[in-house]
Amino acid sequence: MSVIRIHEVGLRDGLQMEREIVPTETKLAWLRRLMASGVGTIQVGSFVHPVKVPQMADTDSLFAGLGAAGARPPGLTLSALVLNEKGLERALASGVDLICAGVSASETHSVKNTGMGTGEATERIIAIARRAAAEGRVVQLSVQSAFGCGYEGRVPPERVLGIVARYLEAGMTNISLADTAGHATPAHVEALFGAVRSLDGTLELACHFHNTYGMGLANAWAALRAGVTSFESSVAGLGGCPFTKIAGGNVCTEDLVHMFRAMGMCREIDLAGLVALAADIAKFFGREMPGTVYRTGTIAAYED
Amino acid sequence: MSVIRIHEVGLRDGLQMEREIVPTETKLAWLRRLMASGVGTIQVGSFVHPVKVPQMADTDSLFAGLGAAGARPPGLTLSALVLNEKGLERALASGVDLICAGVSASETHSVKNTGMGTGEATERIIAIARRAAAEGRVVQLSVQSAFGCGYEGRVPPERVLGIVARYLEAGMTNISLADTAGHATPAHVEALFGAVRSLDGTLELACHFHNTYGMGLANAWAALRAGVTSFESSVAGLGGCPFTKIAGGNVCTEDLVHMFRAMGMCREIDLAGLVALAADIAKFFGREMPGTVYRTGTIAAYED
Repeated sequence: MSVIRIHEVGLRDGLQMEREIVPTETKLAWLRRLMASGVGTIQVGSFVHPVKVPQMADTDSLFAGLGAAGARPPGLTLSALVLNEKGLERALASGVDLICAGVSASETHSVKNTGMGTGEATERIIAIARRAAAEGRVVQLSVQSAFGCGYEGRVPPERVLGIVARYLEAGMTNISLADTAGHATPAHVEALFGAVRSLDGTLELACHFHNTYGMGLANAWAALRAGVTSFESSVAGLGGCPFTKIAGGNVCTEDLVHMFRAMGMCREIDLAGLVALAADIAKFFGREMPGTVYRTGTIAAYED
Repeated sequence: MSVIRIHEVGLRDGLQMEREIVPTETKLAWLRRLMASGVGTIQVGSFVHPVKVPQMADTDSLFAGLGAAGARPPGLTLSALVLNEKGLERALASGVDLICAGVSASETHSVKNTGMGTGEATERIIAIARRAAAEGRVVQLSVQSAFGCGYEGRVPPERVLGIVARYLEAGMTNISLADTAGHATPAHVEALFGAVRSLDGTLELACHFHNTYGMGLANAWAALRAGVTSFESSVAGLGGCPFTKIAGGNVCTEDLVHMFRAMGMCREIDLAGLVALAADIAKFFGREMPGTVYRTGTIAAYED
């Protein structure tokens, strides 16, 4: 039995990069296939203002379309991203199991994204997290740009650890480090997750990598070695920016599951189902996606 | 000072997959740029029968064109692959510093490639290696298909370790494990190199990965952790098969150097020079190459 949890974020972090709005019915079909694949956690969308990110405007409808929490496959967790108090109200009104929120360790990135510096944003997110927890929802708090920032370059580990320490003080124990810019390296991943674990060895740790420079799977392996148990990834490798030379998106779910299965983990996941979905997503967008295995096929020797 | 050695094999393992014959003058220009980049070891070609691999027919001319061993940059090693006695004679007549040879751990692959089973091929390669060493050349012996085989699937580690043990008995201490089919996973890499090191902790270990399923950099990181110091890779990611769906070639040199540099290693290598060469190789073949960094650019924060 695998202790690894795949957190599929393609319909949120992947699609929000896409200009073409995916119809709600198509998203629901993809979500149902993801649910059937045995992936443990699926991010349905983001409760962000619809004018800001039109691709996420139907997040409430998606939750409604997936039906009541009791009607879902046992063990499946549906998550959503929440950015502010208004989003939290929408999330609480939906059937979300896991509420994800976070702040950027990069001051510049934080101000650009939220209008607030990291310190102020952290206090606001903690208030939201406390409210969500009081309402009985599981909460995961993340540190974005934890491994580097497109604006600021290197991000000192002390900034990341300071935010995590504040999360812990507030009683939050489910922590994700996100490599928003794709700058993470395996050595950095091991060191930073190791430092977080030294704050509290009982934390549930999650990682979120982008494959911008081809290091996504290497970083996932490093994270696994560092005690991380939840891996955020996007089916088909959604999340690249198709209009720039930055082709790599989030770490690709089926490539990640393929690697883990080849090492004897994630055996409960239907890899062929994920591969077929990735191929259909490529067809939908009419272009080659960043994922590898949906093009090459899987290693037959590991599928015994 | 980095202890890592990059062994550039693009002009051998990469180009032998290409149908378009690259003119000798073009290869010499690429080789001179590789020599100027600070990469420690460069494989010039293979002393294979020219009818079998026409792309390698000019290996003797390339060595002649690069000039006498004494005229090369200090610290630079030029290598070549040798498959049989005739190839060894050609190698000894050239200015090759490092002679590479090996056998496949897969019986089927061995017979298909050499007409001999693994046992017979091992004895023959050892005889060649002894002769090369007696002539004062450095020798590296490899085990091909060490992590799996396209024909046989899983390859038992005992087969790999048996071949390595035979190499050691023959006094050979420079050992490469090659993932010919791209089946290696990070856990497999750590386990197999760990087992080889337990045979003899003083060996010089080299790895050779293909990025067929996107795990190339993850495997390189795992190999580094397992004590490997020499990394075989191809500039631009040469070595994919452009006529099949298997796009990924050898681990891409500039992507690998980029990752290592971001972790503080390989600082003596001119990454920008490698990236420019990869772009020119893509232009030469008129198609996008498998490498990532030559398209995305490097992470500026790590180039300080």
